[in-house]
Amino acid sequence: MQIYKYNKPLILESGERVEALEIAYHTYGTLNSNHDNIIWVCHALTANSDVADWWQNTVVPGGMLDPERYFVVCANVLGSCYGTTGPLSINPTTEKPYYASFPQITVRDIVACNRLLAQHLGISRVKMLVGSSLGGFQCMEWAIIDPDFTENLMLIATAATTTPWAAAFNESQRMAIEADQTYGTESDDAGSQGMGVARSIALLSYRGADAYNMTQQNNGKETTPFHHRVQSYQHHQGDKLRQRFNAYSYYRLSQVVDSHNVGRNRGSIDEALRSIKARTQVVAISSDILFPPADHQVFIDNIPDVRYTLINSEFGHDGFLVEHEYLTRIVKDFFK
Amino acid sequence: MQIYKYNKPLILESGERVEALEIAYHTYGTLNSNHDNIIWVCHALTANSDVADWWQNTVVPGGMLDPERYFVVCANVLGSCYGTTGPLSINPTTEKPYYASFPQITVRDIVACNRLLAQHLGISRVKMLVGSSLGGFQCMEWAIIDPDFTENLMLIATAATTTPWAAAFNESQRMAIEADQTYGTESDDAGSQGMGVARSIALLSYRGADAYNMTQQNNGKETTPFHHRVQSYQHHQGDKLRQRFNAYSYYRLSQVVDSHNVGRNRGSIDEALRSIKARTQVVAISSDILFPPADHQVFIDNIPDVRYTLINSEFGHDGFLVEHEYLTRIVKDFFK
Repeated sequence: MQIYKYNKPLILESGERVEALEIAYHTYGTLNSNHDNIIWVCHALTANSDVADWWQNTVVPGGMLDPERYFVVCANVLGSCYGTTGPLSINPTTEKPYYASFPQITVRDIVACNRLLAQHLGISRVKMLVGSSLGGFQCMEWAIIDPDFTENLMLIATAATTTPWAAAFNESQRMAIEADQTYGTESDDAGSQGMGVARSIALLSYRGADAYNMTQQNNGKETTPFHHRVQSYQHHQGDKLRQRFNAYSYYRLSQVVDSHNVGRNRGSIDEALRSIKARTQVVAISSDILFPPADHQVFIDNIPDVRYTLINSEFGHDGFLVEHEYLTRIVKDFFK
Repeated sequence: MQIYKYNKPLILESGERVEALEIAYHTYGTLNSNHDNIIWVCHALTANSDVADWWQNTVVPGGMLDPERYFVVCANVLGSCYGTTGPLSINPTTEKPYYASFPQITVRDIVACNRLLAQHLGISRVKMLVGSSLGGFQCMEWAIIDPDFTENLMLIATAATTTPWAAAFNESQRMAIEADQTYGTESDDAGSQGMGVARSIALLSYRGADAYNMTQQNNGKETTPFHHRVQSYQHHQGDKLRQRFNAYSYYRLSQVVDSHNVGRNRGSIDEALRSIKARTQVVAISSDILFPPADHQVFIDNIPDVRYTLINSEFGHDGFLVEHEYLTRIVKDFFK
């Protein structure tokens, strides 16, 4: 991991400022002499800049992000807790961590950080911007803000705006964090139990009924506690996130998801999407209930140069992490 | 509301006992001389015995539970907080409320209470047992335990067992209650904030994406806080339940839902359903994601005398509360 110390304030969409901005990032592979082999990956909610770690089997020879062919860049998002400035960072004004006082941010603020890093790295154009979910939000925003920045755009399991139902999932998760009375106190662990609950709620949207039932079917013979396997699984997923993430970051990033609307201050969603110049590949996952295939129609209808692929997968929204073979094939076809 | 004081201990499926059982119930209309006009309603999770209150437009002249034609009975479920013994009741042994010490119960324990009340009222056979959701669980259990008790059985938006995904929703809700550190203390309000969160989570399953998005679409023009309407709605639903329900009851009743499996100790679900003698009307709601139409197939495949109706409704699982006109028509056809 490398750190770019911007060391100047970032002015947010809200007008607020984040002082002494730092951006954590990873690169893989080698920039070629023509500078035309750059793939920029934008990551989803709780991931980090280490793409090779969280998007398994992609940053491998022959994979969709083959480091022998491409120079791959990924920045940790603003507000996260993996190196880029966020609620656990020291606020220079108070000389204490921000915690709950870290300002509310938007997808566009994250893209502003990505663009500062690109500038720092001397990257003015990339071969492809790719991301799924919140990663996709960043990619489409970037392709709208700077239509010449990317030649190709790949949007996976994502949406042009967050639907009310998805936002309601986020609100329930924030309510769970708030119900943990340690949230708001000045401690790295504050709200950690509530965040575990939030993760268990999120999981219900990452895997719909069919995907969940397939993997967590009980044998029909257990007695009390009923659905013991399911209970263990929900707790386990919550505990796993508690070991690696921070509740203040989680809270702010879930609000980032709610902020997503490519049409905001641009007339309309359709109009915003029509300004995208990049050749675009849209990928939806058949069993995704969070960003269902139907929600991808707006991309097909409006992005001028667009193709669409539906992945038949039982893994729901999580499919983007699992279906790397499908995705590798799609990228190869897309680059032909 | 009337109270039947059984005043003897109820032995639970687990072997534990509930002392000095009391059962709250409502009746509407008049028992006819042939005693063949009884409709017994079983209620869902947070409802009560006052059917006319929560199932609007049904206990009205011409309605599906027309009090001029039928003698309608409904008992508040064991473990609830509307009159029947539950966590807020005084434990005769300690002379204090049970709170968290109220034993874990099952659908079959609730049916055992219903049957004690029926015996007390001198009811040995009814014209129809009807219920939706957890109410449907009770009805089908009752029709299996005592196949001669009801002539007709109406199962609405329900299931033969709770799926892992539905159980995961329940577990996340219990985790939210536990994350409220007041839960476990000896107070009527303990865990109340957590229960508000639980309700907001439940709502995500009561209305799927389409139903939710239809009613909560924002106008696309709002700035921060983003999705303000959705946030207000989720909080409002949580607050509404906090004003009328108890977290200890909610926790125990969500476990009751998880306990549901008509096949438990009966060989299999298919075998259990095949033992139902009642003429049965199964009703599913097209947009129900909690108990989707596909989950009703097992009833059609196994209950010997069965008919099936799909209600096209946008209200999701909540449709059973809304679509009274549909339901009234279905009952009229069913009784022809």
